[in-house]
Amino acid sequence: MDNPVLPQGVTADSISLLLGHPDPATLATPQFQAAVQHVMASPQAALAYGDEPGHPALMEYLVDRINREQQLALQRENLMIVAGSTHAVDMIARLYTQPGGAVIVESPSYADSLHVFRDHGVALHSVAMDQGGVMIEAFEKLLKQLAEKDNLPSLYYTIPNFHNPTGISTSLERRLEIIRLSQEYGFTIVEDDVYRDLAFDTAVPPSFYTLANGKNVIQIGSFSKTLAPGLRLGWVIASAESIHRFVFCGTTQMGGGASPLAAQIVAEYCQRGHWDGHLEHLRRGYRLRRDTMLTALGQYMSPEVSWTTPSGGFFVWVTLPGEMQGSVVKAETLKRGVMLAAGEGYFINPDDGKHNIRLTYSFAPLSDIKTAVRILGEVIAG
Amino acid sequence: MDNPVLPQGVTADSISLLLGHPDPATLATPQFQAAVQHVMASPQAALAYGDEPGHPALMEYLVDRINREQQLALQRENLMIVAGSTHAVDMIARLYTQPGGAVIVESPSYADSLHVFRDHGVALHSVAMDQGGVMIEAFEKLLKQLAEKDNLPSLYYTIPNFHNPTGISTSLERRLEIIRLSQEYGFTIVEDDVYRDLAFDTAVPPSFYTLANGKNVIQIGSFSKTLAPGLRLGWVIASAESIHRFVFCGTTQMGGGASPLAAQIVAEYCQRGHWDGHLEHLRRGYRLRRDTMLTALGQYMSPEVSWTTPSGGFFVWVTLPGEMQGSVVKAETLKRGVMLAAGEGYFINPDDGKHNIRLTYSFAPLSDIKTAVRILGEVIAG
Repeated sequence: MDNPVLPQGVTADSISLLLGHPDPATLATPQFQAAVQHVMASPQAALAYGDEPGHPALMEYLVDRINREQQLALQRENLMIVAGSTHAVDMIARLYTQPGGAVIVESPSYADSLHVFRDHGVALHSVAMDQGGVMIEAFEKLLKQLAEKDNLPSLYYTIPNFHNPTGISTSLERRLEIIRLSQEYGFTIVEDDVYRDLAFDTAVPPSFYTLANGKNVIQIGSFSKTLAPGLRLGWVIASAESIHRFVFCGTTQMGGGASPLAAQIVAEYCQRGHWDGHLEHLRRGYRLRRDTMLTALGQYMSPEVSWTTPSGGFFVWVTLPGEMQGSVVKAETLKRGVMLAAGEGYFINPDDGKHNIRLTYSFAPLSDIKTAVRILGEVIAG
Repeated sequence: MDNPVLPQGVTADSISLLLGHPDPATLATPQFQAAVQHVMASPQAALAYGDEPGHPALMEYLVDRINREQQLALQRENLMIVAGSTHAVDMIARLYTQPGGAVIVESPSYADSLHVFRDHGVALHSVAMDQGGVMIEAFEKLLKQLAEKDNLPSLYYTIPNFHNPTGISTSLERRLEIIRLSQEYGFTIVEDDVYRDLAFDTAVPPSFYTLANGKNVIQIGSFSKTLAPGLRLGWVIASAESIHRFVFCGTTQMGGGASPLAAQIVAEYCQRGHWDGHLEHLRRGYRLRRDTMLTALGQYMSPEVSWTTPSGGFFVWVTLPGEMQGSVVKAETLKRGVMLAAGEGYFINPDDGKHNIRLTYSFAPLSDIKTAVRILGEVIAG
């Protein structure tokens, strides 16, 4: 969740370009509250243990929707409801890795996912990215090195659309190359696709799951970015065999289905047809925020600063001029009331990110984004 | 959650002495619904990412209550809100064990917790129980054996009150002996105390946490048995150092505080003072069910059958006569519409439980309990 604890010295007046959270103003809608009312009129099932694979009505809704949107033919046994993408990443790490076993990630990657993998004791390796995603030659070279050490990765973890922290989307061509590598070297692709529904400009490329026809791909989705993180609700699609493994693991058998109360509310909300309209509203709102940030960057940054141009999601990735350190910029902007993330935490080798910062446009009030970027420009200009 | 999927051939008319679930009739009360209404009138915070240690108002309520009930002096940093005891057991296994490392459990123990530990690849060892809990001589012998192999356990997992599956409570004397062993051999006691508030007859003995003054003890509590499992809400108390480790692990950092929506509803419910009255209601209801089952067992069992007499919780543990197999009794009662659990799944060595069955009196309608025990008696009598 990108460290929501306020850093020392920050006041409530600070502007957060730090938190990868949805716009708080989008979280409670009358339609959502109506769904709550409906469920609470007869809440027994929502308050009991849920079916292990998840709330049936929500599963049915998601299977239909994903099949339609990703041109798939999933059955119910290809999907499981989870308590947010955290639950999914942790469960996959628990069941598909072992301590010392190799896992490959993008460089950079989502800091909290790296943390989850580290908690499972895996040996993380990473592949550098350019504007099209990870670079295939470097990926293949790494795989050959790992093969020589007899430690081929069990997993490749990727955020293919509007990547955290860079905002980059992996191109179709790269996706196909990665699938080729997955088949040649026998690893599973974990496609963490929680920003997929927040495409502002053009449709996202076909998913790894679609391109590989589901073979050796586990795709993660979430309601945290597009409905409300407090629900703790997401889903996983995978082969029936993988889903069976998730459903019959210890934590699922012990706890039952994920977030039964939230799942029943969201099922009601989605079945009433509200989610698609809400997504359209979110895309309009976040597109405007993205445009505001990019315009401000163009206006206030010195020419040696560069940044990505995300076509969706929450993040812009900034490369600082020359030897300027992200951690110094972070500390200096903080003194002026602007919070942002230094680049180091997103890399296995922190030094690789020491000249980067990540800016988030999803959370701060729209009116504050321009102010914050202006302050950042002043700090960088010295 | 004790396998809620209906076994093949079971109809909706079947009587479940299988599920370790609360009485469904107790799940939705007007007081609970009023708390929901209150939270949903201003739901923004409940729908956002929560503070990593948990919802502050719920933490404050629990710290006060636990201090009062267990004669402790916990501070806020000794408690974390979790998504049910499942979340706690899994997180403890992830952070306090390693594959191949030893963990000691009671024999028998809660099947789903064994499953969680197995998913983490630990080497499970167990100590046989009598009516007072695990037998200390055997425990110490096992520790000496493990010490010789240089694989002392990091954890001892226990359900001290109204144990699942036996209904037994560990005596005060045994608790003190186990704490002595914990200090001598350097393992942490994981005290899974989810039935503690369901004492029917006398007060529970002082907790391991109280007796050890919190040293090397992690205690787990839950709202699943005493309010509603669908909330996915529980807590952990431990040293500030352990709680810090839980709060700053990857999954907590990624997902934020556990079940924010449910936590805020439950905080409101508890702060209004409703939970204690609800617990009193539950104790009365479950005591009547327990008495009904014990009376029926006395009436319908042949003299060679023996069973435990729980003074709280959900379970009675039955020892079958001679060479009679629990799995056969389970299959035969199932044909007559009664579901129960065979003993094998609760043991590391399944054969140790082949002459046992577990009966649950919490879930089936009260009127069905006597009928089900009568059918069981007929099956055992042949």
